[in-house]
Amino acid sequence: MRLVTYRRNVLESARLGAIVDNMVVDIEYLGMIAGIDLPNDMLEFIDLGPSAVATATELLKEHQESWPVGVAQPLQNVKLLAPIPRPRKNIFGIGLNYVEHVEESSRSLDTSADLPKQPIIFTKPPTTVIGPDDSIEHNAKITQQLDWEVELAAIIGTRARRIEEKDALSYVFGYSLMLDMSARDNRRAGQWVYSKGLDTYAPFGPCIVTADEIPDPQKLDLWLKVNGEIKQQSNTRHMLFNVAHLVADISAGITLEPGDIIATGTPSGVGAGRNPQEWLWPGDVVESYVEGIGTMRNPVVAI
Amino acid sequence: MRLVTYRRNVLESARLGAIVDNMVVDIEYLGMIAGIDLPNDMLEFIDLGPSAVATATELLKEHQESWPVGVAQPLQNVKLLAPIPRPRKNIFGIGLNYVEHVEESSRSLDTSADLPKQPIIFTKPPTTVIGPDDSIEHNAKITQQLDWEVELAAIIGTRARRIEEKDALSYVFGYSLMLDMSARDNRRAGQWVYSKGLDTYAPFGPCIVTADEIPDPQKLDLWLKVNGEIKQQSNTRHMLFNVAHLVADISAGITLEPGDIIATGTPSGVGAGRNPQEWLWPGDVVESYVEGIGTMRNPVVAI
Repeated sequence: MRLVTYRRNVLESARLGAIVDNMVVDIEYLGMIAGIDLPNDMLEFIDLGPSAVATATELLKEHQESWPVGVAQPLQNVKLLAPIPRPRKNIFGIGLNYVEHVEESSRSLDTSADLPKQPIIFTKPPTTVIGPDDSIEHNAKITQQLDWEVELAAIIGTRARRIEEKDALSYVFGYSLMLDMSARDNRRAGQWVYSKGLDTYAPFGPCIVTADEIPDPQKLDLWLKVNGEIKQQSNTRHMLFNVAHLVADISAGITLEPGDIIATGTPSGVGAGRNPQEWLWPGDVVESYVEGIGTMRNPVVAI
Repeated sequence: MRLVTYRRNVLESARLGAIVDNMVVDIEYLGMIAGIDLPNDMLEFIDLGPSAVATATELLKEHQESWPVGVAQPLQNVKLLAPIPRPRKNIFGIGLNYVEHVEESSRSLDTSADLPKQPIIFTKPPTTVIGPDDSIEHNAKITQQLDWEVELAAIIGTRARRIEEKDALSYVFGYSLMLDMSARDNRRAGQWVYSKGLDTYAPFGPCIVTADEIPDPQKLDLWLKVNGEIKQQSNTRHMLFNVAHLVADISAGITLEPGDIIATGTPSGVGAGRNPQEWLWPGDVVESYVEGIGTMRNPVVAI
């Protein structure tokens, strides 16, 4: 399933939907037709566990020839929000998780050229999250070095505490696309929270694809363009620590919970690593893609 | 007001109370007596803003000579939980915010001896939070260097975005006591999230004292003992960046929201800075104190 959080108009609150062809099918309304309670919220849906995914998948299949009245509408008629507009805790971010990005960072930032021996974890507050076509804020009072990072995001489905790597992917609800926007001039004594935690610094979307449709998260192309020009292009097979390793590693000491988001790191090609360095400015447009998930388009605006 | 989250027994869910003398007065029940809706949850209470504080304060004063039946009970009959058992995002932690701790850290850890020019921010996930007499988990598979840090915590009351330092304290709902437990051997390439983010690493309590009762948060004694022996002893006047500065600084780029928690940094005397270094082990007991707020007593247990 390709799950989205959407809104039909500004007066209505956000709802849970699934994209089928070019239609957004409302999950709660679809359940009502069948007399089954399904939630209208992504986090509540994730909380219900695998049986809700199975039920919704079955209902979508059953009705896809002809959607009941009021249940589906054309994708272009709705606004997509971030799939989880308001995470329940900070996003887990992984630093330096692609070999070539370790190298470019050591040249241009203050990080080591040695490959990390363990995943490097930082976090981004829930206030960083914006939707797949929302604007990234450029605050010139704070940064002159706004940079891009395209990433595969893994969304946890089941409480995970001290799990083994071989079991770890079964704890993943699904996958999405997230940008880890970074104000490079706002690192503080090596800590990245401020530089990566500013408002709007986590464009997220356009959907969460459930894990059953992405059996191997380590063979997905991903790219990022600025103003139409390719800046990052790689494949998730180049991750240093794969998704299963990340989930197992974090869960060894930090209990992961349904709805938790792990942004799994970015490949090379960030602005800081280019010669000369490149930064984003108001008016720029960032487009991004992860194979099997989709694209986002986020303009940069001055605030 | 000295607000707590408490539970009368294991079958009941957590409730919001106020400590008056040695009684816990239930805020929701107290409101009912007066025909006023007050919540049974700390975060909901904070969300209501200053008028709820004023209403509850007034009702407590009105009834303190004789509590209505069922509204109050002796403190020793209840279990205190963390005042906010489940924060809505990671706790903001401030690193190296007391001069002597900067010095001891530069000797024993990998940090600079120079005083930070800006607050150094890291975070602790909601899963770190435990109550004022809950146990700190010692996982010997993960750490052999479990360390203590006693801190004043500030709890945000009002959404704060780009506010000035002179106005910042009016955005603070109240103050509490938090330990920033740290597995020193789990820093990763300079990032502190894993070392400070392990389950149970944020003992929090025993109460939140509303800001009206602590007009100046920069003159509070604080200390920490291990097995009865004083290890840290200082006063919040020695902070490099005071609470008002921290709130203003974070809010410049990261919107602060009601219920957000800022752990404002620890004075010198941590285990890593001692000669020889000292670490916590199962069986140890950590006692902590902030003036005007209270004490906590957290045993260390093996898991």
